[in-house]
Amino acid sequence: MYQKVKGTYDVLPNESPYWQFLEQKIREICAIYNFSEVRTPILEHYEVIHRVNEDSDMVKKQTYDFKDLSDRLLTLRPEQTAGIIRAYVENKLYANQDISKFYYIGPNFRYERPQKGRFRQFSQFGVEALNSDSYLLDAEIVALAYNFIKSLGINEIKVEINSIGDSQNRIEFRKTLVEYFTSYTELLCDDCKNRLLTNPLRILDCKVCSKEPFFKNAPSPLNYLNNESKERFDKVLEELENANIDYVVNPNLVRGLDYYDHTVFEIVSYSEELSHLALGGGGRYSSLVKELGGPDITGIGFAFGMERLLLALNNSNLINIVPPLLDVYLLVTTNYPYKISLLQDLRKNNITVETNYTVGSFKNMFIKALNKNPKYILIAGEDEFKNNTITVKNLSTRTEEIVKKTNIIKYLKKELKTKKG
Amino acid sequence: MYQKVKGTYDVLPNESPYWQFLEQKIREICAIYNFSEVRTPILEHYEVIHRVNEDSDMVKKQTYDFKDLSDRLLTLRPEQTAGIIRAYVENKLYANQDISKFYYIGPNFRYERPQKGRFRQFSQFGVEALNSDSYLLDAEIVALAYNFIKSLGINEIKVEINSIGDSQNRIEFRKTLVEYFTSYTELLCDDCKNRLLTNPLRILDCKVCSKEPFFKNAPSPLNYLNNESKERFDKVLEELENANIDYVVNPNLVRGLDYYDHTVFEIVSYSEELSHLALGGGGRYSSLVKELGGPDITGIGFAFGMERLLLALNNSNLINIVPPLLDVYLLVTTNYPYKISLLQDLRKNNITVETNYTVGSFKNMFIKALNKNPKYILIAGEDEFKNNTITVKNLSTRTEEIVKKTNIIKYLKKELKTKKG
Repeated sequence: MYQKVKGTYDVLPNESPYWQFLEQKIREICAIYNFSEVRTPILEHYEVIHRVNEDSDMVKKQTYDFKDLSDRLLTLRPEQTAGIIRAYVENKLYANQDISKFYYIGPNFRYERPQKGRFRQFSQFGVEALNSDSYLLDAEIVALAYNFIKSLGINEIKVEINSIGDSQNRIEFRKTLVEYFTSYTELLCDDCKNRLLTNPLRILDCKVCSKEPFFKNAPSPLNYLNNESKERFDKVLEELENANIDYVVNPNLVRGLDYYDHTVFEIVSYSEELSHLALGGGGRYSSLVKELGGPDITGIGFAFGMERLLLALNNSNLINIVPPLLDVYLLVTTNYPYKISLLQDLRKNNITVETNYTVGSFKNMFIKALNKNPKYILIAGEDEFKNNTITVKNLSTRTEEIVKKTNIIKYLKKELKTKKG
Repeated sequence: MYQKVKGTYDVLPNESPYWQFLEQKIREICAIYNFSEVRTPILEHYEVIHRVNEDSDMVKKQTYDFKDLSDRLLTLRPEQTAGIIRAYVENKLYANQDISKFYYIGPNFRYERPQKGRFRQFSQFGVEALNSDSYLLDAEIVALAYNFIKSLGINEIKVEINSIGDSQNRIEFRKTLVEYFTSYTELLCDDCKNRLLTNPLRILDCKVCSKEPFFKNAPSPLNYLNNESKERFDKVLEELENANIDYVVNPNLVRGLDYYDHTVFEIVSYSEELSHLALGGGGRYSSLVKELGGPDITGIGFAFGMERLLLALNNSNLINIVPPLLDVYLLVTTNYPYKISLLQDLRKNNITVETNYTVGSFKNMFIKALNKNPKYILIAGEDEFKNNTITVKNLSTRTEEIVKKTNIIKYLKKELKTKKG
C-alpha cells in the first residue's frame, strides 16, 4: 500500500474544521492590528535561504535542496521570513517610506526527526513588521502574539522576553560567552562544541547543556547591554506592563536564528500538560533586509507552529469548536428525474443539504440520513410527488409536518432562521 | 539582487484580499454542498504520483522529483487527486461504506514553460466524491462547478460535457482512433506521433492538430458508447437540463489525464476577453482508487486553477471586492508611555486600528494618517492627555468632536455600528 511520506500528515474531514478555525482567528486578529497577508512561493533559490541564517544549524543540515530540470538549485523554504524579505526587496516595497506589516500562513519543510507536534512538512503563522526601529513596534508585536494566543482560549501563558542588544553589544557578549564556554569545552555536547566556533549564542538555547551544572553561571546578554539598548528594553517592558501583558524576563533567551538583535521573545505555556512549551516566538532583526540586497532597514516578527497551536488547543478548548450541523437531508424514496433541480433550489438559498443517491429500503435510507446529523430530514416519495408536497421531519423537536412543495424554501428559511436566532 | 524562482509569484498585500475572497467563496459553496476539506502533503512518494497517470505527458516530463537526505525518491505534487486517493486508501475512509465528499485548495508544482496565468507553482481548488457510481453524483458535481463559477459573478460560461463510456467502450474507441490517426501519421505534430502509441485519446485534446483539416472526421467517443453508457449519459444531461445548467455536448472533449471514464466536462468561458478559455474541469474515474491499493471504487471530481479564476475575476467583478476600510488611526502627537495600552483597548473591542510610531511635524503625521484611509482619526496630544480627552475626526462627515477618554470605546462602537448598518 502507498503511504504518506515520513514526517508528513493528512488533514482529514474530522480535523480540517480546527485548521479553518485557527486560520479564521488569525485573519481576524491580523485585520484588527492592520497586518496584511502576503504569500511567497514554497520554492526559493538556494541562495535566498542559505545566504541568510548561514550559521544556523537548521539551515545547514535540514533543508530540502534539489536541482530543477534546468539545473537551478532550489530549496523548499524551511521558514518564511527569508522569502518575505526577498519579496519585500525584489518588489521594492520599502519605497513608500512607511512601515509594512505582513502576516503569512503556510507550509515549510525541514528534514528533522519527526516527533509529537514536529513534522517535516509543517505550517507556520507569522508576522513581519518592516521599516521602523521604534520600541513601540516591539511592544505591539509582543502584544499581538500574546493576544492572539489568548483569543484562542489558551490560558496560562506568559511572554518570556530578553534583549540581546545591538550588534556592538553582541560582539562583546559573544566574546565573553566563548571565553566562558571554552573552559568547559570537554563538557559541551557535540553540537555545542561546533556552536562554540560558529554560533556561540545558540549554546544558551541548548536543551542538553542548559541542564548541566557548568551552565549555571554562564553570562547573560542582559549584562552586556549598553545604556541605549538597556533604555530601549526598559521602554518595551514598560509598554507591556501598562498593557497588562503577563511577561517575565528570561536572561538566557536568545532564539535559534542568528540574525536577531534587541528584543527576543517567546510565548510560553505554563499549563500542566504543556509544561513550559514555547508556542512560538520571534524578535527584532537588523541585518536581514540588507543581507538580501535591500536598504539598511530593520524589522521585527514572530512565528507560531500551527501544529503546536492545535496541540495546545486540544488541551484546552478545541472541543468547543463544533462544525455547524447540516441544515437538511433530502431523502428521495423513489426514482425521480428532477432531483438535482430540487437540491439546486435549496442550495441557491444557502441551505446546506445532503441527499441519498440510490433508492433502497426505507429503514436503511433513513438510518443513513440520521447518520449525517441534519437539523431536518425532508422526505419525498411517490405520495409526496403526487400531491406536490414534502414531508419535513424536525429532528430537534421530533415533529413532522407536510409542506407544499412550492412553500418549502420559505418554510425552511423561517425554521432555520428561528433556530439560529 | 535575489529574485523569486522563475514561474513562481509573490502575492502582495494589494492582491491577497482577492485570494481570501476566492477561498471564502469556495468554503461557503462547499459547505452548502456538504463537501469537507482535506489537506494532503505537498511531498508524496514518487510512486504515488508516477504510478497513476503513467501515460500522462505532464507526469512524465513536468514533475519536480528529488531524493531526500535518506535517499527517498519524492515528488512535489503536480495535482492533488493522487494524494487524496492515497490518503483515502491509507486511512481506510472507504470503510464507512458511504460517499465521501472532499474539497481541497492548495499549491501544486509543474515544470512547464511559464505563460500568462500558468505558473510552476500554482494553486488549485478541487473536489473529489468517492464511493458511488450514481449518475446523480455526476450531475451534482457538474452543478457544483457551474454554480461555483456563477457565484463568483463570472457570467457567459457554459458546461462543455462528453462521455467517454466505460472501459470496454474506451478499448474499442481507442482502437478506432488509432486506426484513423495512423493514416495521418505524417501530418500529426511530434507530440501526437508519440501519443498515437501511448495515449491516443489525448490527440483529440491537441491544440495544434485539432485545427488541421485531417482532424475533422476523427471519430468521437460518443459514437462508441454501449447502450448502458449512453443511457447513463442521457440521464446526466436530463438532470442538468432540469436544473437549468447551461451545457453543450462537446464530442471531442476527453481531458488530459488517462484515468477518466463516463462523464468528462469543462467549465468554459464564452466571454469576449476569455474566448473559450476552460476555467476548470473534471470527470469520473474508475481505476484510480484500485490502482492506489484500495477497493474497486469509483469517484468523480474536478479542479480549477486559482490563478485562472483570478484572471477571469479580473475581467468581470474583481473591482467590486474592496477590502474593508481601517476603522481608526490613532495619532499620538506627543511622547506618551501608555500607547500600546491605548491601542489594546481599541483592539479588544474589535476596532481595527493603525498608529504612528514616531513623533514629527503634525502635518507630516496627519498626511501619513490620511494615507491609511481610516474612517476616523483619533488625535491625542498634550492638551488631550491633560484633559483626559481624545479628538475624533470623522473623515466621511469631515466633522470633529472632543470625546472623554473614558467614553471613547462606547463612542466609537456606536459610530462604527451606525456606519456599518
